[in-house]
Amino acid sequence: MTTAKRDTYTPETLLSVAVRVFNDRGYDGTSMEHLSKAAGISKSSIYHHVAGKEELLRRAVSRALDGLFGILDEEHARVGRAVRRLEYVTRRMVEVLTAELPYVTLLLRVRGNTGTERWALERRREFDHRVAELMKEAAADGDVRADVEFGLATRLVFGMINSLVEWYRPDGRGVGEREVADAVVRLVFEGLRKEE
Amino acid sequence: MTTAKRDTYTPETLLSVAVRVFNDRGYDGTSMEHLSKAAGISKSSIYHHVAGKEELLRRAVSRALDGLFGILDEEHARVGRAVRRLEYVTRRMVEVLTAELPYVTLLLRVRGNTGTERWALERRREFDHRVAELMKEAAADGDVRADVEFGLATRLVFGMINSLVEWYRPDGRGVGEREVADAVVRLVFEGLRKEE
Repeated sequence: MTTAKRDTYTPETLLSVAVRVFNDRGYDGTSMEHLSKAAGISKSSIYHHVAGKEELLRRAVSRALDGLFGILDEEHARVGRAVRRLEYVTRRMVEVLTAELPYVTLLLRVRGNTGTERWALERRREFDHRVAELMKEAAADGDVRADVEFGLATRLVFGMINSLVEWYRPDGRGVGEREVADAVVRLVFEGLRKEE
Repeated sequence: MTTAKRDTYTPETLLSVAVRVFNDRGYDGTSMEHLSKAAGISKSSIYHHVAGKEELLRRAVSRALDGLFGILDEEHARVGRAVRRLEYVTRRMVEVLTAELPYVTLLLRVRGNTGTERWALERRREFDHRVAELMKEAAADGDVRADVEFGLATRLVFGMINSLVEWYRPDGRGVGEREVADAVVRLVFEGLRKEE
């Protein structure tokens, strides 16, 4: 038991504590006891807000997934030439990753032992698939190089974008969100080599 | 205790079992008991080969680091225009990652709780720094775009390459090592967009 602290949490603020603990210890390695200690409230207070740690996981990865899927509903992702839509989606993915960093970090680390984890993996695959379809369309338009298989290209581009969770820290001292988004779009579409 | 099995391991074959367990359970989550069960020999038999799990970690990450640093000593990494050397190093990194997949996977997951982990992180940073220097040189030659800061570019390129450990599986049914290396070099240097 922890020392009682007045429970001033909302499900939303409790979530941000839980996500930090999940990312530090891993979801599997986190107990309700760990959550209770990190939040400074009793386990029963936590149960007042949520049914258990799996609900916290579901809410956390939902926030990341809603951010990512939301991109696909935006006008610039729906209207226009496929390669321009792909460029827009790439930039917005970087923006969502940096804005929702702990939530997306958790989503990308989910491995699939519980129902919620398997659901999250399934939704991630669905998102990846939607972006792969966009790349396929851009390739069919002749706007994307044909000498790299589009499924492989999608994985590599996602690899570059998702690597942000490993090193991007929004502390105001390093590179800014805008600079990172510009860099990713330039590298993904134009590559490193300077035009002759 | 496990059921006694005749110990036919060498330090090398024991290492491959240990790396698999470390990657599955995480280094922190692996006990000598887990290693003993996975290898099917007693803990004292393991101690006959190595001083403990930290020695197994050191040997495993050394194998990955030796592979990576070895690239920098190769002729094409030392001689010629910086951008060509950078291209060579990029291709060889993919080759080392795919050839030494479990060892590099472990290296990339190391977080730094023990002396061996901190040493591995330090060596990784040193390798990253050597490649960043090469990119800086290529930028100074005017061969690499100047509108992406080279430290940021290095991180993003490493992000793309290192993502291989998350999805590349050398099962002979998926994409081949050569196809992946070609794809990475093309995307990193030329980008997705088809030349006009």
